[in-house]
Amino acid sequence: MSEQVGKQSLHFANPPYIISSASVVGTKEGEGPLGDRFDMVGEDDRFDGSTWEESESMLQKIALHTALEKAGIRPQDLRYLFAGDLLGQSVATSFGLQEFGIPLFGLYGACSTAGLALTLAAMALSAGYADLDAAVTSSHFASAEKQFRFPLEYANQRPLSSTWTVTGSGAFILAGRRAYEAIPGNHHGKDPHRRIKITGVTTGKIVDFGIHDSMNMGAAMAPAAQDVIETHLKDFSRSPSDYDRIITGDLGLIGKEILLDLMREKGIDLSAVHEDCGIKIFDNEKQGTGSGGSGCGCSAVTLSAYYLPMLESGEFRRILFVPTGALLSKISFNEGQNVPGIAHAVVLESE
Amino acid sequence: MSEQVGKQSLHFANPPYIISSASVVGTKEGEGPLGDRFDMVGEDDRFDGSTWEESESMLQKIALHTALEKAGIRPQDLRYLFAGDLLGQSVATSFGLQEFGIPLFGLYGACSTAGLALTLAAMALSAGYADLDAAVTSSHFASAEKQFRFPLEYANQRPLSSTWTVTGSGAFILAGRRAYEAIPGNHHGKDPHRRIKITGVTTGKIVDFGIHDSMNMGAAMAPAAQDVIETHLKDFSRSPSDYDRIITGDLGLIGKEILLDLMREKGIDLSAVHEDCGIKIFDNEKQGTGSGGSGCGCSAVTLSAYYLPMLESGEFRRILFVPTGALLSKISFNEGQNVPGIAHAVVLESE
Repeated sequence: MSEQVGKQSLHFANPPYIISSASVVGTKEGEGPLGDRFDMVGEDDRFDGSTWEESESMLQKIALHTALEKAGIRPQDLRYLFAGDLLGQSVATSFGLQEFGIPLFGLYGACSTAGLALTLAAMALSAGYADLDAAVTSSHFASAEKQFRFPLEYANQRPLSSTWTVTGSGAFILAGRRAYEAIPGNHHGKDPHRRIKITGVTTGKIVDFGIHDSMNMGAAMAPAAQDVIETHLKDFSRSPSDYDRIITGDLGLIGKEILLDLMREKGIDLSAVHEDCGIKIFDNEKQGTGSGGSGCGCSAVTLSAYYLPMLESGEFRRILFVPTGALLSKISFNEGQNVPGIAHAVVLESE
Repeated sequence: MSEQVGKQSLHFANPPYIISSASVVGTKEGEGPLGDRFDMVGEDDRFDGSTWEESESMLQKIALHTALEKAGIRPQDLRYLFAGDLLGQSVATSFGLQEFGIPLFGLYGACSTAGLALTLAAMALSAGYADLDAAVTSSHFASAEKQFRFPLEYANQRPLSSTWTVTGSGAFILAGRRAYEAIPGNHHGKDPHRRIKITGVTTGKIVDFGIHDSMNMGAAMAPAAQDVIETHLKDFSRSPSDYDRIITGDLGLIGKEILLDLMREKGIDLSAVHEDCGIKIFDNEKQGTGSGGSGCGCSAVTLSAYYLPMLESGEFRRILFVPTGALLSKISFNEGQNVPGIAHAVVLESE
């Protein structure tokens, strides 16, 4: 049976399960509305790293260790890691995950990387290429500011349209059905939680609307979100009401408005089901986070700490998780290039 | 049937075919020993780009267009692109491939990215997730020097152990069996060339030998190559003599010696079959390229221009292609981090 659906989607013949996940965040995220839901909130944002890059590596390390522990499995039980981050040459991932000694597929999709990693991890499991694998992504406010904008010491002013990079890492352990049922320590087998499976994916294209402003990432990414959500609904012959929530990664307040407008132009009303992790994770008014949270870690920790539990409890039955990425580097931006976007959609369902 | 072999390998139940490939290189590569085998040698290294990053994007664009043309298919016939490069935030890929409008899996594996891209492209085809997809990688001497070392204008001296980043991009069009046989313009169907298939892969782990010298990448990457080649031979119960060639990506002269020594310590003699794309692509003595060529483009263009034709002609029947990557960024290096390595192995056979 072919699993190809439409032009860009897959409907998995053997939907893999998310058997555990973990979220590790910094202090500001801990003070936000989801603060008490994260697995770990750091005492400071250093996590014992001597540089911000090392701190970000520590986030990934702690997140993956925690997710493994929650699943009751050892690192060597994982066949593959699918992981990435926002830093140049993905150094947070290289230095954060090397001690696990697991074959690594290194990924780069800017802030859409959590979607990319879950997609490929699910593809590998449904095909039988692995029985257990993991998806890990991270971002860190201080390493990202240094990389993309200004060092913190410069204390530059931020326009209201700018987003606030989340300090956080989310790790997800995925299993094929057989492996899922064989895990003795699997907490899902012991308690009444519903099982969460990835039933399909829609992989995004690069979409360039000619945005030049690196302080307005929401506007750069909204067209890519619109494109992949519209394609997804068409490929699966579904409407927004088939989902309890359609959740973008880090469009923020401005990007959300643009997305809803763009969808309306296509005749699709997303307003009843749309949420955005970047809006969910901070209390923008109290926390001064501009348009909202952003970064590879934003969607990952929000999925782990907030949306997966809503699926486990049965409050949500099906959600579409759509991390969104802005494809720029400091060099491309300084050279006057546009900021194109990309987004990848993952269907999560409770059983 | 499970396709998992040993701890880290896959043996494809439905081996996909490489139906065409293309190599586009700069002037220095054109003057090297493989000069007349490349599909295109630029008149200068700019390829009409106004920045070096744009030039690298142009390389990818030309390579993919050329490979599509050789296969006789259109961009929209491809279901997925698997692509990456060496630059921070993979900007060569984002700006080089966006106009094709194909769903993109963005990858980062430093100079091992050609192996990573072929691996995932083959996995997607063997599983039936796609019928046609493509793998593309690139590097550019000038953009890489600027990113990792010094701007060209600085005219710094280079130690002999340093490698010379290849200006080049390789693109590969892959097809599942059904799609392969359905393509009318497929030149493989018309002429007596042998068909080339990817029969297996071994995915590498990050290996850190404590190398600190960014001017000696060969030493940083050799242990990762050793690890993945040894694992590969064990997983498939093969010996080096089962391969006509075992080909690393860009170890260069120094890395090659280290690899052969490390393998000897494990009781494996690789000397009769080992070759390295970084050594193959330049005439180091005449061209002053230090230890050899390197970069995401080095292994990709050498595979396309030299090794695939050797398989097509039947001179080689089975090769192991092992692109090697050094996991560093300018930031990680300046912060005193080690330079760990990673390598991914791909089995190519002629039918």
